[in-house]
Amino acid sequence: MSEAPASMSAGEIAQAVSNRKITAVAATEAALVRIAVHDKVLNAFTDVTADRARAKARAIDAEIAAGKSVGPLAGVPFAVKNLFDVEGLATRAGSKINRDLPASPRDATLIERMEAAGAVLVGALNMGEYAYDFTGENAHDGPSRNPHDPTRMAGGSSGGSGSAVGGALVPIALGSDTNGSIRVPSSFCGIFGLKPTYGRLSRARSFPFVASLDHLGPFARGVTDLALAYDVMQGPDTDDPACVARPLEPTMPLLAEGISGLRVAIAGGYFQQNLLPEAVEAVARVAKALGATRTVELPEAARARAAAFIITTTEGVALHLDRLRKRAGDFDPAVRDRLFAGAMIPAVHVDKAQKFRRWYRARVLELFQSVDVILAPATPCTAPKIGQATFTLDGVELPVRPNIGIHTQPISFIGLPVAAVPVPLEPMPIGVQIIAAPWREDIALRVAYALEQMGVANAPAPKGF
Amino acid sequence: MSEAPASMSAGEIAQAVSNRKITAVAATEAALVRIAVHDKVLNAFTDVTADRARAKARAIDAEIAAGKSVGPLAGVPFAVKNLFDVEGLATRAGSKINRDLPASPRDATLIERMEAAGAVLVGALNMGEYAYDFTGENAHDGPSRNPHDPTRMAGGSSGGSGSAVGGALVPIALGSDTNGSIRVPSSFCGIFGLKPTYGRLSRARSFPFVASLDHLGPFARGVTDLALAYDVMQGPDTDDPACVARPLEPTMPLLAEGISGLRVAIAGGYFQQNLLPEAVEAVARVAKALGATRTVELPEAARARAAAFIITTTEGVALHLDRLRKRAGDFDPAVRDRLFAGAMIPAVHVDKAQKFRRWYRARVLELFQSVDVILAPATPCTAPKIGQATFTLDGVELPVRPNIGIHTQPISFIGLPVAAVPVPLEPMPIGVQIIAAPWREDIALRVAYALEQMGVANAPAPKGF
Repeated sequence: MSEAPASMSAGEIAQAVSNRKITAVAATEAALVRIAVHDKVLNAFTDVTADRARAKARAIDAEIAAGKSVGPLAGVPFAVKNLFDVEGLATRAGSKINRDLPASPRDATLIERMEAAGAVLVGALNMGEYAYDFTGENAHDGPSRNPHDPTRMAGGSSGGSGSAVGGALVPIALGSDTNGSIRVPSSFCGIFGLKPTYGRLSRARSFPFVASLDHLGPFARGVTDLALAYDVMQGPDTDDPACVARPLEPTMPLLAEGISGLRVAIAGGYFQQNLLPEAVEAVARVAKALGATRTVELPEAARARAAAFIITTTEGVALHLDRLRKRAGDFDPAVRDRLFAGAMIPAVHVDKAQKFRRWYRARVLELFQSVDVILAPATPCTAPKIGQATFTLDGVELPVRPNIGIHTQPISFIGLPVAAVPVPLEPMPIGVQIIAAPWREDIALRVAYALEQMGVANAPAPKGF
Repeated sequence: MSEAPASMSAGEIAQAVSNRKITAVAATEAALVRIAVHDKVLNAFTDVTADRARAKARAIDAEIAAGKSVGPLAGVPFAVKNLFDVEGLATRAGSKINRDLPASPRDATLIERMEAAGAVLVGALNMGEYAYDFTGENAHDGPSRNPHDPTRMAGGSSGGSGSAVGGALVPIALGSDTNGSIRVPSSFCGIFGLKPTYGRLSRARSFPFVASLDHLGPFARGVTDLALAYDVMQGPDTDDPACVARPLEPTMPLLAEGISGLRVAIAGGYFQQNLLPEAVEAVARVAKALGATRTVELPEAARARAAAFIITTTEGVALHLDRLRKRAGDFDPAVRDRLFAGAMIPAVHVDKAQKFRRWYRARVLELFQSVDVILAPATPCTAPKIGQATFTLDGVELPVRPNIGIHTQPISFIGLPVAAVPVPLEPMPIGVQIIAAPWREDIALRVAYALEQMGVANAPAPKGF
């Protein structure tokens, strides 16, 4: 029995545990050690659930010793953005205010499903306050740091998820994506992330942000691990009204099917603007590897982003209004001021945004009659420096905070599934969005897997600590 | 062959036409004569479609002469609020601005269904501008006048519908009800009106006001006519996304089933406040006739009304924003100023109103587990004088215009079916709402029919002209 090295994937750990090459306890302890050593730098974790993890790991080892069959994630350590309910913890959702909530009585559905497959929850992860963030900075907990350069942002709002997986503290983490909060940290931290179709994965017992835009999903350093986690989390859940009752559609068996016959296009116009050279290079590499030459235009993408902003800030302030009235001083100032601005947006603009959303969704779905996959940058740049206030896109100096998500917002706005794949540029990696039609996560993951096999997309080893 | 007198019901006309006692042409000419004579006073019609009506009547007579079977409304004249599309007319919806629209290429679905049953469209009816009205007044077309006292309001926004039916110009009219616009004119004009369940009758090719609250429905001077019209208009229609695909549920065969076994309750609290003595008397008469003694409370009805206001004005301004920007001076000032106010309501209030709406709907539906019918006043008073600006409710002087609908708004807000029945008080009639659970128009109509049979609810003969 040996300690699971940081380089082992979730699949390798589960196989080694199932075959008694290592114990689940050893895999768990190894993760706890890595967290103890490296999280001082990365600041990815806000809670380490060591006792719970050890108990779960012992239970798995006992089942294996008793000859029982264990799930496909047996002994795999994972962690969750701290907006997931974890039994016994207050669900802080990156805030100071929520720490006064009572401890959660029950885990989020996705944690239950991960653990039913044998995975071991080792903790909860840092995030931008109330998920209204693209940086991974947090006024209360400090910033999550980038595993490839700790002076840089991890990206947000699932910053701890990106940092923990990119830094190999755990092979799998879960996060949420309302406007880009899975895809942005994936891009900055050089890992794979999956934002599934809106309504695919249950959000039951997670702290919401914008109900009509919130998605949950996994992060991993390889596509097989991403698909493993995604597959065990699928399935309807009446505790989330938006979660659609669909049959399970496992993607693992399909990954190696290859991509011949898939029609791949590059998003043009809006998605080829506001990019630094590294983002252009990343999309070009992926497009070349896939033989994609055709360009398609998502119509009115700039309006889509504006509409996503309006819906986000107005639904967000509706959720937080009571807290803003009573405890404005306890908010992260960067978040509070965005919410206050949202409180003054007239309803007529929201109505217009919603009507536009239906139009835009219909037009984009038409595109998928002639393409299977659309490529777009995940972020306009590699990770900025922590605290960096502005960057220059197309010659215009812009605030960093809202503009990191410039290329992700128009996609999540209509709930399309996206695999973010990391292109290992030097000195910093950057992500590309592999966008598919609704419910076709399998296609996005097959393309991601092919890119990984070709060596075009890969999670670089952490090198910052 | 004799001319159809004003006192003939739709059912009697159809039977007489089918049996060749009178011709459809004669019935139509009689209606055109009544309109020509009396509409100078009532101002109910904005368009009289005499040529079209005569052609349709001749066609029906030809079918009868050829021995073909004709529908249950053969030769029955009817008219529609001028927000229904009528082929060849611009759908003005009470406005000046819409008169610049092109002529409609096709009739509204409900007109098609009425005419398929043999009814004869004789014209389009006056209404409050863009249906944002409870008075029946109109700055462009002048007020619809009350058939029992032309110095009084007909009620709105379907003022012409109430006036035309109450004045016996036509036996049936169609109108719309967003917050009370069928029930209020029914009450003021002393006639029966049906606001069906939200989603029951197609709104295809009618000019909208608040899509999530708009209902179309019929007016008549008797319950049999009301049911006749309602029954022929039922049925799904893919041209109205809100129109639910349900099997036809004819109510005519059920009217005479009686009401024994039905559990009737009186709406308490909110619905027993802000009433003048005549409204109290009308509800008491109806309750006594039905043996209703139990009172039920619709929880938070005042908030329901406030939420209905917020949703109405914000959805309304979203619909009209472009017109407000370009042609503010061409609006009815009373409507324009309400819309401008709506343009400044923050979205956060709408979000709260929508969340409350779901809560309130669930609570009210629970009430229907122990009752079948709830009684409530239709208006706080009989018809005010045209131009009257204020009235005094519970000792407080209030503006008339928004407060006429104080007891109708909390009901339409959650789409419940309501039959408004006229109690023939002197000197002016007043209506009572017979409210049923969703999709139970049959129950509301059975109760209305029983009240009519008992002589408690009846449309008084017009006496004002």
